Amino acid sequence: MKKICILIVLALLIGNSGSFAQQIVWKEIEPGIWKGIVGKPESYDLLKASGAKPFEEGLLKLAKTGFPLQQDDISASLTDGKVYLQFPLQKEEQLYGFGLNFQTVHQRGKILQLHTDHYGGKDNGRTHAPTPFYVSSKGYGVFINSARYITVYAGTGVRKNSTNPEIAKDRNTDKTWSSRPYSDAVEIIVPATGVEVYVFAGPTTMDAVRRFNLFNGGGVLPPRWGLGFTQRVKSLYTSAEVEKEAAAFEEKGFPLDFIGLEPGWQSKSYPGTFEWARQRYPQPSQFVQQMLAKGIRLNLWINPYVSKEAPFYKSIQPYTGSHTVWVGEVPDFTLPEAREAFMGQLKKDQVDIGVSGYKIDEVDGYDYYLWPDVASFPSGISGEQMRQTFGLLAQRYTNELYRNKNQRTFGLVRASNAGGVSLPYVIYNDYYNHEDFITALINSGTAGVLWTPEVRASKTAEEWLRRFQTVVFSPMAMINAWSSGTKPWSYPEVASQIKELALLRMRMIPYWYSEFAKYHFEGTPPFHGMALEEGFKQEIKKDATNKNLEENPYAEATSKEIKDQYMAGEYLLVAPLFTGQTTRKVVLPKGKWYDFYTGELAGDGEVITVTPGLDKIPVYVKDGGVIPMMPAMMHAPKAGEKVDLEIRYYGTKPGYYKLYDDDGETFNYENGAYSFREIRVIKNAAGNFVGSITDPVKGKPNTVGSVTWKFMSK
Amino acid sequence: MKKICILIVLALLIGNSGSFAQQIVWKEIEPGIWKGIVGKPESYDLLKASGAKPFEEGLLKLAKTGFPLQQDDISASLTDGKVYLQFPLQKEEQLYGFGLNFQTVHQRGKILQLHTDHYGGKDNGRTHAPTPFYVSSKGYGVFINSARYITVYAGTGVRKNSTNPEIAKDRNTDKTWSSRPYSDAVEIIVPATGVEVYVFAGPTTMDAVRRFNLFNGGGVLPPRWGLGFTQRVKSLYTSAEVEKEAAAFEEKGFPLDFIGLEPGWQSKSYPGTFEWARQRYPQPSQFVQQMLAKGIRLNLWINPYVSKEAPFYKSIQPYTGSHTVWVGEVPDFTLPEAREAFMGQLKKDQVDIGVSGYKIDEVDGYDYYLWPDVASFPSGISGEQMRQTFGLLAQRYTNELYRNKNQRTFGLVRASNAGGVSLPYVIYNDYYNHEDFITALINSGTAGVLWTPEVRASKTAEEWLRRFQTVVFSPMAMINAWSSGTKPWSYPEVASQIKELALLRMRMIPYWYSEFAKYHFEGTPPFHGMALEEGFKQEIKKDATNKNLEENPYAEATSKEIKDQYMAGEYLLVAPLFTGQTTRKVVLPKGKWYDFYTGELAGDGEVITVTPGLDKIPVYVKDGGVIPMMPAMMHAPKAGEKVDLEIRYYGTKPGYYKLYDDDGETFNYENGAYSFREIRVIKNAAGNFVGSITDPVKGKPNTVGSVTWKFMSK
Repeated sequence: MKKICILIVLALLIGNSGSFAQQIVWKEIEPGIWKGIVGKPESYDLLKASGAKPFEEGLLKLAKTGFPLQQDDISASLTDGKVYLQFPLQKEEQLYGFGLNFQTVHQRGKILQLHTDHYGGKDNGRTHAPTPFYVSSKGYGVFINSARYITVYAGTGVRKNSTNPEIAKDRNTDKTWSSRPYSDAVEIIVPATGVEVYVFAGPTTMDAVRRFNLFNGGGVLPPRWGLGFTQRVKSLYTSAEVEKEAAAFEEKGFPLDFIGLEPGWQSKSYPGTFEWARQRYPQPSQFVQQMLAKGIRLNLWINPYVSKEAPFYKSIQPYTGSHTVWVGEVPDFTLPEAREAFMGQLKKDQVDIGVSGYKIDEVDGYDYYLWPDVASFPSGISGEQMRQTFGLLAQRYTNELYRNKNQRTFGLVRASNAGGVSLPYVIYNDYYNHEDFITALINSGTAGVLWTPEVRASKTAEEWLRRFQTVVFSPMAMINAWSSGTKPWSYPEVASQIKELALLRMRMIPYWYSEFAKYHFEGTPPFHGMALEEGFKQEIKKDATNKNLEENPYAEATSKEIKDQYMAGEYLLVAPLFTGQTTRKVVLPKGKWYDFYTGELAGDGEVITVTPGLDKIPVYVKDGGVIPMMPAMMHAPKAGEKVDLEIRYYGTKPGYYKLYDDDGETFNYENGAYSFREIRVIKNAAGNFVGSITDPVKGKPNTVGSVTWKFMSK
Repeated sequence: MKKICILIVLALLIGNSGSFAQQIVWKEIEPGIWKGIVGKPESYDLLKASGAKPFEEGLLKLAKTGFPLQQDDISASLTDGKVYLQFPLQKEEQLYGFGLNFQTVHQRGKILQLHTDHYGGKDNGRTHAPTPFYVSSKGYGVFINSARYITVYAGTGVRKNSTNPEIAKDRNTDKTWSSRPYSDAVEIIVPATGVEVYVFAGPTTMDAVRRFNLFNGGGVLPPRWGLGFTQRVKSLYTSAEVEKEAAAFEEKGFPLDFIGLEPGWQSKSYPGTFEWARQRYPQPSQFVQQMLAKGIRLNLWINPYVSKEAPFYKSIQPYTGSHTVWVGEVPDFTLPEAREAFMGQLKKDQVDIGVSGYKIDEVDGYDYYLWPDVASFPSGISGEQMRQTFGLLAQRYTNELYRNKNQRTFGLVRASNAGGVSLPYVIYNDYYNHEDFITALINSGTAGVLWTPEVRASKTAEEWLRRFQTVVFSPMAMINAWSSGTKPWSYPEVASQIKELALLRMRMIPYWYSEFAKYHFEGTPPFHGMALEEGFKQEIKKDATNKNLEENPYAEATSKEIKDQYMAGEYLLVAPLFTGQTTRKVVLPKGKWYDFYTGELAGDGEVITVTPGLDKIPVYVKDGGVIPMMPAMMHAPKAGEKVDLEIRYYGTKPGYYKLYDDDGETFNYENGAYSFREIRVIKNAAGNFVGSITDPVKGKPNTVGSVTWKFMSK
């Protein structure tokens, strides 16, 4: 006994300094999803924070398949008190993911420390959603379920004992010398003494993404109104000014589904009181109801830092962290007491009077504002773990307020992470680079999040229009005028084009809504990059020799990757133009692609150059594409409201589409109150296109009125 | 027994998740230096890596004083498996240090992760010498002896239980709202389960720096020749070309003490063989001796990554790390076997034939080139610990080669850390921003390192001259022409001014050498910022409200701090001009300051504006300043060589100087073979200045020939 005891104590004492190889036993926990355990995983992780549960129904529909890698090629150790992981990497393999990056899509060759933060202008792992998940062009995915700052070497380190080693070269004389020799592994450090690791099978890269999303509960299905148009008003607006704003939209014929109120709705902000500013909103309940009666919902800005003047301050105070943010206290939302105090106030003061959602600001970073990592929280969660999951917690428990009322919400948030796939929030930020906003839209598809390239203000009408063109092809069509007060029509030269785009957004709601349904039921991200498309050829990032060594030998060459065009749903390829551009190249994957506006053939597996003019954002439809559209309504259809469909069809291949339908507002779809109706287009014997749609499913919500067909291509 | 065992095991098991306050017992281990132990410090740290031992003799000369802070204001805990430290911070307190920063001197309000790396353009803790040491304007210093990536919150976090809390403000309406409320603490995370912490008393900020430097062994005393001029030649030069280069210097009358050979001296590089390239250097021994005979020493570039073709590869292979750098293996220099193989080769092949030193490249970063943190080393040192100390180890053991021969060396290195104060290396890098190079010179004084603003090439003659003006007022007067092949005279328009400056550097060797002796014996950094000068007023960094919130609310205002002028030794204030400048402001601390060139009064505790012309770098001498100078020799004096002194005196206050003397080449000074001779200047009864110098100390080296006096001020 004594000897055993001494041995155990010794083993524990040296635990932090030695290196111990860990055998990973892979267990298939869902079809095509394997879980491996290294060491003793921590009691708190991303899945626990988010409360995500697999969406079994969706997972079961995916093909059965074997473990997508050689299990022996994956290794783990407990070293230096941390988990070291190693995954194989072939020479011709590209990697995608590792969260919401803004400037790069190809992640091979990157070193990242995944750390929830505002985006600071560099893809270094610090971002709003630093999801520890990646997929490979070889058709598999890897997810590290840890709420720690994970360091990733995505194919950079070259091991001495590599089985496929590079040969050294003499830099003095050999011009082929490279500063970045081939690395045969993705190596990862999890600063914890244990972790759960998940591997997702394909066979395609998209399938691996689908499995990840379904494993996280399936993607969010927003309410229909969430896919309409939203305007955020100036911070210190009064209820009267908000009503005036809504009236202006109506008068000018601009659609509007929800208005966002910024910090000024609160009596005090930064830190917040979480109660209405009576001087600006004297009768909140009446105001909210009057707006709802006009078909306009309200979304309220918050950041969850609690002022001493908040009505629930005393109840929450014992359940906040050691450090403050703008002198406001930070709720430990893992504790029921903190949730009760905080969410109780939101429920009583706002949700119960009809407020439809929140914009949750500053739960991401930055370091100089948020609690430091030395902060501690009463639950025992560390500052680091809270930083990685605060956005998840805020989303989860505000969403719960709506779930409890069987009412969907759709809001905005500044931070998310793995596990948040099914939470009804769209990420936004303060960064305002249009090109990078589009790259983020691409990367959102592999990060398990939604992202909006929100429009705020612009230097020119051209910029205004170019930005607007992309936001209507995104998860949330929004103008965020909290500071500028800009309206859609603020640039008269382009006001009619803006209106046209806003109306197009509305007309496409049947398509958007069905694509989001696929996100939920099938795991397919509605917005994603070309790399997830079949028929698209990958390129491996290469290091270029830097010619100007004396100036800065560390300036890295950037690789060719598609960062400026993306897929919007199953059929649409969107290729935005940016301010100053009149022409651009579009990479069309294999297969025929058609102009969205004219139906004309645009190309097939080729790079085309287009000059669309200022009014148009180039959009292409895949051969056989079906786009269900509705009339240009001023608000999204209400629950049960019937709308007529115009079903567009492109190309020549047989057309197929699954049109989703439900009440658009509740969670009844989770209990089966939904249907997918099948749309088909074929060419009949006479050589004419013929469309058909299956009958409404009996006993399920049916919002389809009349159906007309539009065969776009000649 | 059984119960105790279970309790111990339980305590160890929860060690990583709980939070345990740690009582720090402060023990005065040297006069004015206290050591505190938190948890169980690791077996490997910065002092162990460097082998630094306190220089007792110097420490004993500093004033006795009490613990400089309230001990109760310092707290520590073991939380989340790491050490959390907290030090007090008063409202009117500025902080300096945290390593070799390039863009900021004021460190209050910073968040840094101290991480050895190439400088990436941002002061975020990643730098060549991320020394975990800071000093306060209140006159104390703190050093964390850890070879880990330490996170520092230098007055950013605001604790809920602060005894001096800020009052929350409403950002909606209160224009005085600040995004950065007052923080009353420096908080630090050491990712280890224990650490040694040191506190250094003042009373002045400079005294705290002195104690730190002396605690680390005292500053390096270079050989006299190290303070002369050095030229680094193009990488693929042959011995004949090097000889030609030396001849050109002689012919043109440019001083030259040592020549640097770049990668091409080696038969292969990146990774290296560490043997001469016989095609370029057919007779190394003869070549080195011939150069020495001309009074010119050789310094060899290396980076310590070992090619399979190195002659000692087989001996070192078992003692290298798990990962390679450019496919070269990384010696674990903490192991005697690795040192024997590697240093044995250097000794046999280079040091023993007369090579005078090394330039140790790429031991700093960057992440994409060096071993990843997942790397392991055969000694058990982690990749992280090796990264923090690799530069120290390389310096320490190459220096040992010279110590063993009782011969001083003076070389270049890309990485250092605390503990390296006495090691004979100057840091350089690839970054080439002249302004930032000067800021680094300032910060070197609180980082325990030397730094050279090396000159490489320039776009214009003006830039060439401006850069040259600063490098002759720095620890190493060097042109690094490894890529460009530039010579001092390459810009004919300014060649005569360059020559003048090079000769000035030589003439000032008695001053430089004495100032370095004070670095060694008294701990006073020869190059340092204004903040360490008495009579200089500090400014606290303030956060400015960002006007353009919509564009980027995270753009921080920079504070006013003196980043472009510095002290060179006890008496000289250097205020460089940069390309494009014709005029600049100079902040003169309290007391009279005199023009170095003319002796004229420049000002007293005021900001002056100067327009010195292109030929001059503004330099000011403190009232009573004494500058010993020698003739403009082509090489630094050899051991025992007598040189005449011209002693300059400035101002009106009684002049005093300690002139250092020794053989200039060996370590015999460590055994007493040195002297400080006292120089005094007073005004006699007749109102004339009279200078005096104490007699040479019997039995000590004396290199002073005749003495003449030059009273510069009227």
